[in-house]
Amino acid sequence: MEIKIALIGCGTVGTGLLEILEAKSEYLKNKFDFEPKVVAISDLHKGSILVPDGIDIGTMLALLKEGKRIDQYYGEGKTAELLNPLDMIEKCEAQIIAELTYTDIKTGEPATGYIKKALRTGMHVVTSNKGPAALYYHELRKMADQNGLCFCIEGTVMSGTPVFSLVESGLAGNEIREVKGILNGTTNFILSKMEQDNMDYREALELAQKLGYAEADPTADVEGYDAVAKIVILSNVLLGGNIAPDDVRRQGITGLTREQILAARDQGFRYKLIAQAKKSAGGVEAAVSPQKLPLSDPLTGVMGAQNALTFDLDLMGKVTIQGAGAGKVETGYSILSDILAIHRQMKK
Amino acid sequence: MEIKIALIGCGTVGTGLLEILEAKSEYLKNKFDFEPKVVAISDLHKGSILVPDGIDIGTMLALLKEGKRIDQYYGEGKTAELLNPLDMIEKCEAQIIAELTYTDIKTGEPATGYIKKALRTGMHVVTSNKGPAALYYHELRKMADQNGLCFCIEGTVMSGTPVFSLVESGLAGNEIREVKGILNGTTNFILSKMEQDNMDYREALELAQKLGYAEADPTADVEGYDAVAKIVILSNVLLGGNIAPDDVRRQGITGLTREQILAARDQGFRYKLIAQAKKSAGGVEAAVSPQKLPLSDPLTGVMGAQNALTFDLDLMGKVTIQGAGAGKVETGYSILSDILAIHRQMKK
Repeated sequence: MEIKIALIGCGTVGTGLLEILEAKSEYLKNKFDFEPKVVAISDLHKGSILVPDGIDIGTMLALLKEGKRIDQYYGEGKTAELLNPLDMIEKCEAQIIAELTYTDIKTGEPATGYIKKALRTGMHVVTSNKGPAALYYHELRKMADQNGLCFCIEGTVMSGTPVFSLVESGLAGNEIREVKGILNGTTNFILSKMEQDNMDYREALELAQKLGYAEADPTADVEGYDAVAKIVILSNVLLGGNIAPDDVRRQGITGLTREQILAARDQGFRYKLIAQAKKSAGGVEAAVSPQKLPLSDPLTGVMGAQNALTFDLDLMGKVTIQGAGAGKVETGYSILSDILAIHRQMKK
Repeated sequence: MEIKIALIGCGTVGTGLLEILEAKSEYLKNKFDFEPKVVAISDLHKGSILVPDGIDIGTMLALLKEGKRIDQYYGEGKTAELLNPLDMIEKCEAQIIAELTYTDIKTGEPATGYIKKALRTGMHVVTSNKGPAALYYHELRKMADQNGLCFCIEGTVMSGTPVFSLVESGLAGNEIREVKGILNGTTNFILSKMEQDNMDYREALELAQKLGYAEADPTADVEGYDAVAKIVILSNVLLGGNIAPDDVRRQGITGLTREQILAARDQGFRYKLIAQAKKSAGGVEAAVSPQKLPLSDPLTGVMGAQNALTFDLDLMGKVTIQGAGAGKVETGYSILSDILAIHRQMKK
């Protein structure tokens, strides 16, 4: 079954998705009768293209690899009409819009505008963008529901490691009392290095930056803002909350010293930056802060850039899932995972 | 949407399922439009009953709690016609048969006969019984597919902790290269006690027996047979294998001494009974044996009666899920989880 997909944003996640679609096209067709047809791509920096018959993904990947513009798809020098994302949504006749632009956690824009436009135009939306999901989840979910469409956000938390799909299928019927997790790989990497390799905060941060885990301005990670966005999403999607990032108690890891970390280790504990949310009388209470976990906690063993999340459930008790929290292929896969879920629904 | 269910076997798992259905009936109706109607129960020891209009679950649970026979449902002294499971399947007009009898890992009977009868009669089958799944998976799957029916086995591995549903939904599109897990809670409990509380094997086993984790004859657990059945199921269902329990290299934990365990701990390792299967040139290679894991392995932190499974995937790398591996409510939930999955399909 052919599914027409358009990409808004073609950076790391978009490229990761295209690479998977190219590498696994036979497998996906044989196993799921899934034949993706990428009909349009629009990227702020790389230009845009609309190919109603479907883009040859191998050709596009070669262009991207060489750092060329998307609209050189038809040959060097030939230029296609430049389409902004809103026009592309209107013209592309895709069934699914993959919204893969950058996260703006303050405004959620321009992504939220793209998502609304796609839902109004009758297209399913898949996104790994934390902005719209953290700020406007209930509004976007309602728009999708009213139009019989999917609004899928697997990639917003723990990249392609299953969180939302796990709750919807394998854990269905459980009520979630609390979620508690390591949702930021950068800070977990830094804390791991401080404890295991005896680095101080500055050295560990520099190593994380060198390895591409941390950005030049690491504030969003180390001060806990990234984890805040994710715990807001989990609170609103899984715990029925309606909170905003400002409602979350937040403390980053910049105040933690190597001495504190080593002292904790000697007492049989380990510091982790924990994002936590639980149902309370007033709705949902959420916080991000460094916590000293006992070795018996399943989150304690999660080292390096990995992520993990523990669900506390009325029937199953504690269930923990651990996996990648970032990465080109892993986040690209989160988009594929959502697209395959929509495809399963369409086939029924 | 009403779903008619019949139970074959009403021991721990069946009672756990009934308790959940009773406690969460409002929740399940409101959230999923799911209205289970248990129309028949047949148990080798407790008798049988067929109530086409649906059994009052609260009344039945009260009988079971008092240790009374199922057929006293209509009042003490009144007896109903005794139905053997095969006759019950024929007469009950259920849409789903929950096969919850005891596991016979040598023959898979009588459960396999019940499952075949149900599939031939046009009923979906849900089971937590390892026998049929370990010995006849491909045959039963084919029968189900040919009749457009579901054959669901979530509860056969790690009770209600999602394994098969996780692969089918949240990890769809990944190819699984290897699975590696702690699939037997009894042995994990014993090893944890030997390491943490300095017990010898005999003391730890006796404690496990006292707490109900180990049976009077602990052979199936401590010699690895239970884990073998589970790794056979994982091999055949998830890795495309076609192996039998005898094909699995097996070594239990009875040869492990406290000294070995403590020496490993002092070197920064921990012994776990690991069930492992990977794709190989000839199909699938599977083994159950004690392994010394480094502290960096996500399975190392899994203590007590918990279970965990690591998938090695072509796209997502390693993903680990940890949760309960046994328990009345947890295994009862595994049955509900499969029934809800069938219900989702029926609603489409």
